[in-house]
Order: sequence, then structure tokens, then C-alpha cells
Amino acid sequence: MTHHSHGTGAVHTVWDHALPPALTVGSGDTVTLHTLDASDGGVARRVANGELNAPPELLPLIVADAHPERPGPRGHPLTGPVHVRGAQPGDALRLEILDVRTAAWGWTGCRPDGIGLLDAALAAEGLTAHTHFWDLRAGTHTDFRPGIRLPLAPFPGVIGVAPAAPGAHPTAPPRHVGGNMDIRQLVTGSTLWLPVEVPGALLSAGDLHGAQGDGEVSGTGIETAGQLTLRVHVEPQAGITTPEFATPTPGGHSRAWHATTGHHPDLMEAARTALRATLRRLQARGLSLEDAYILASACVDLKISQIVDAPNYTVSAFLPLDIFGED
Amino acid sequence: MTHHSHGTGAVHTVWDHALPPALTVGSGDTVTLHTLDASDGGVARRVANGELNAPPELLPLIVADAHPERPGPRGHPLTGPVHVRGAQPGDALRLEILDVRTAAWGWTGCRPDGIGLLDAALAAEGLTAHTHFWDLRAGTHTDFRPGIRLPLAPFPGVIGVAPAAPGAHPTAPPRHVGGNMDIRQLVTGSTLWLPVEVPGALLSAGDLHGAQGDGEVSGTGIETAGQLTLRVHVEPQAGITTPEFATPTPGGHSRAWHATTGHHPDLMEAARTALRATLRRLQARGLSLEDAYILASACVDLKISQIVDAPNYTVSAFLPLDIFGED
Repeated sequence: MTHHSHGTGAVHTVWDHALPPALTVGSGDTVTLHTLDASDGGVARRVANGELNAPPELLPLIVADAHPERPGPRGHPLTGPVHVRGAQPGDALRLEILDVRTAAWGWTGCRPDGIGLLDAALAAEGLTAHTHFWDLRAGTHTDFRPGIRLPLAPFPGVIGVAPAAPGAHPTAPPRHVGGNMDIRQLVTGSTLWLPVEVPGALLSAGDLHGAQGDGEVSGTGIETAGQLTLRVHVEPQAGITTPEFATPTPGGHSRAWHATTGHHPDLMEAARTALRATLRRLQARGLSLEDAYILASACVDLKISQIVDAPNYTVSAFLPLDIFGED
Repeated sequence: MTHHSHGTGAVHTVWDHALPPALTVGSGDTVTLHTLDASDGGVARRVANGELNAPPELLPLIVADAHPERPGPRGHPLTGPVHVRGAQPGDALRLEILDVRTAAWGWTGCRPDGIGLLDAALAAEGLTAHTHFWDLRAGTHTDFRPGIRLPLAPFPGVIGVAPAAPGAHPTAPPRHVGGNMDIRQLVTGSTLWLPVEVPGALLSAGDLHGAQGDGEVSGTGIETAGQLTLRVHVEPQAGITTPEFATPTPGGHSRAWHATTGHHPDLMEAARTALRATLRRLQARGLSLEDAYILASACVDLKISQIVDAPNYTVSAFLPLDIFGED
């Protein structure tokens, strides 16, 4: 068993099985991947050039991560590909997530014209683009503002293997081979199985999140650079067709929740109704629309309460009250 | 403050604000509603007349609940309506869920042509109609079979108030005034807010479930008769537009989970992919397709992991491993 480490010197921003491996490992080896944030340093560069304001205590840390040599955000910057010796199509890659460490800071954004669940609806109410910066140095928690504290539970937003289909595939959508799944339960202590489609599997990961709610509703979690340590195993002919995982947490440790509901023939619309009502609860606590949206993206969980009571299906948005010290 | 109790002598099977109140209470009063199971005694009648087999130790209990005088399943049999004095359109009804007690037995079904999430797909694999009977007498847990034990966490599957729209509305779909929401976190200790649309609110409830996963994937939870005790409050001009609730649980207390994922432009299809993979895991443990589907409906949670990474959104199906004693 060997330990490998791979820096951020060579990252790729598309999925493509023709990319040359950055590293080759054996089944049973461990590997530490150093990763850039989802913006590929772009948010830090905007701080460095004065386009975005950041809290003074974080400013030097952010500017140090600006990576002026990077070409700017194009796709998620992924560290890899890691070629796993012996992995063949039909096998599964079993990944033990041994350690996830964030950088000293992170960010969450909202905008009126982005990918968020309520961007269009909130734009009509005057939502403006906003970026929140988080101090992650405590390692266990981060304060959104005095009185609102989120526990940190870092995980890789993107982790996957190369698809068999030739050519360059964008990093934004997740696929049956994984990728940008944004599954917040993939924390340290979890195990992920991915279906292998090409020889060597060609594993890549990146886009660490310090925390996130199920849904990632504004489009970003607590986005951060960092490092991810995995033990890699090949499971021959495992017969899986979609990513699966074992996890020690269903997500969240609050003991009290306020939840809102939506009921609609389209689960997407049901989720919008539920989330809008939760944002109202956050606004009633004095948060701006932008802060409510950003905070929800970092900690509100969307559950499918029922998916069978046609014509209306129910999505519930769960706000953990422990973040207010009310647990 | 007064305590009221209402039996199952008069139930209704549609939502209609023209129905005469069965009971009138004041704000602050408590009320115990005795409720029938979702099948309106129909499953018990099928056992009594030999159409369905039930375990010998439950047979007399089931037959006793057959209610031969009932007209058969037409809609969820709901106990109520309860007129709450002073409640006006624009107010909210705040309901403290003080106690939920199941009958001594419950049932969960699957069929190839019903409302379940995978009925059509599993019918092609030979799924047959099946009904599982659960012994609920222990009160805290129920054994699906030796080695598979589910914790009980009873809640009302249907709870709501009459809609303003005139006429008879079916009970199956939930609405902005509540109803068949099937939200498994509405356990004892929870508080539910419902928007009032007609004078007196006209509260009804029924369809208790002994347990259920988020999603209720086969179309039924652990269906049971029982009794529900609520404290009822009127909150004037509360300004809510969709049901909201406070709950002491996000659902589930396992410490280890196996989860499967689906990634698709349609959340419904993403959920189908995730669920199908979880059923395979249950089948690999020796369960029949029917038992896997039924058990999943009773305990597997569907979470929206991300709803922003277009064109593919991610639903994860979480199987709690504590049911196998593996926690």
C-alpha cells in the first residue's frame, strides 16, 4: 500500500477519458488530492482586484488564493485524473473518504440570473448578486453572523470517474459515473462506489464544500479549496449502475427544525414553494433576501416527503434551529 | 381549556367546507380524534372474507377492525370536521401534536398497477400485488421479519383544513391547506401550522402511519387506525400560505446508512433510479421484489441532494442500516 499526493499544478475542467493520467495508483493505495475552489480562484481574484469586498481578517488569506496564473472559471477545476491499475469497465471503484480539509476561508453566492432554485422569482423581488465569505479556521464551525453558527461537515462536491462516451463533457451536471453530485453526506468516514467505464477508471475530484444543505438551493455551498484523502479499491464486476455510498450521517445534527412545505405536480415547483416559505422565516429574523438565500443554500435540507399522492407531490424544506442556538 | 374526543362514527371521505362540523372546540382546547386506517377497514374486510392472508397471531385483531358496516374504500376516511371557534380566513391554525397512538396492527402494500414510484417498472419484472401485516403491539418497534426491525414513529398521514374552493375535493392529493401530506416528521412533539381558508377552519385528520420513509415510495406507509391528540390554537392573521411545522426530528435515528443516487433532468426520474438501486440492495439481502418495495416504503428516505446542477438533478435514497442491527 502506497500513499500518493497530488497538487493543484495540473487540473482539468472537463470530463474526458482521453486526458492523460496525472497519477497512477494501485488498489488499496491512499491518495491525497489538493483541490481548488469551484470558481478556480476566480472569487479570490475578484477580491484581489477590488471587485468584491471581503472581511478584513480574511482578506490576506483570500488574496493568497487568487492564483493569478489560472485562466479563470471555465468548469469546476478537478484534480486528477488518477489512473487506478487494474480497474476495468464493469468494475466499481470503492473510495473510502479518509479526510476532508478545507482552506481557511470559503464563500457562498447568490445572483438574480444564476442557477439557483429561486433566482427568477427572487429577481422579481429585487435580489442582487451577493457573495458571503466564511471564516473556516476554527475547523468545526463557522459563524454566518453573531448568533448564527453552522457546523462544518466538509465533503467533495465533485467526485467521479471518466465516462465511456468520447469527447469533453462539462463538469456541471452529475452523471451515472458521479461528478458534481453535491451530496453533503460524503463526509469523512463515508465510502463511495462509482461504476467504472474506462480502463484505469480515471478518478478526479474537487469543489470541496465546508457545509451545504440537501439541495444547495442558491447554487453554491460553502465553496472552498482544500485537500481530500481517499483510499482507493477496485471491486471487480460489482454490477452497480449508479453511484452508491455508505455514510455515518443522514446530514445534520440539530434537535429542532422548522420546516415548510410545497405541494405540486412538479417536484421542482413543490421545492420552490417550500423554499420560498423558509426564506420568509429567515427574513423575519432580520436577514436580507440575499443572506436568507445564501444561508439556506448552506444549511436547509430538501426532503421528498411523498412522491405518490398524485397529482400533488410534497417537498419539505428543513431549517435546523441549532444554528440559532435554539436547539 | 376543554378536552374533546371524537369517535369514528362519522367520518368523511372528501374535503368539502359545506360538510357540517362534527365537533366545535375553542382555541387552546385539546381534542382526541379516533381514526380509521386509509383503506377504511377495507384491508381488514379482505382478511375477514379470506381474500388476504394475515399472520395467525394478528388475525383476530384484524378481523375485529373490519367494520363491515363501512361502504368500502372511497377516499381516506377522515375524522372531523372540527370547527374551531373564531378561526377566520387569513388566520393560521396551530396544532400541537400531543400524542399519536396506532392500533395493534398495520399494513403496507404494493401492486403492479397502483400509485407507487416504480409500479410500472417493477411490473415489467413480475411484481405482484402483496400486503404485509405488521404487529404494532410493542409500541416502540415492529419486526418486518427476524433480523429486520423498524422503530415506530407514528404520525397522521392526513391532516388539514377545508379549502375555500366550493365542492367536494378528493383526499388523495395534499394542498396548500394540508391534507394527505404524508410528512413523517409530524410525530408527537411537533407543531403544525395550517392556513385557514373558511370560518371555523374545519380541521380533519386520519390515515395514521406507524412509520414511513421520506417519499412513501410504494404508495403506503405502515397504515393503521388509531388516535391522535392535538391542542388547537388560532393564530390571527399569521400570513402563512403553505403548511409549516416545527419538529424534534429530521426523521430517523440510524447511525449508518447505505444510499443510492439518481441524476436526471426530472427529479421524479432521478428518484426512480435511486430507488431501483436501493431495491437491488434489499433483494441482495434475500428479500423478494415485493418485500423490498414494501420495506423501502416504510423506511427509505428520499433526499434532494442538489437541485441546481442543470441539466441533471440528484436524488439520493437513504436506507437506514439500524434496521438490520448493523448500526
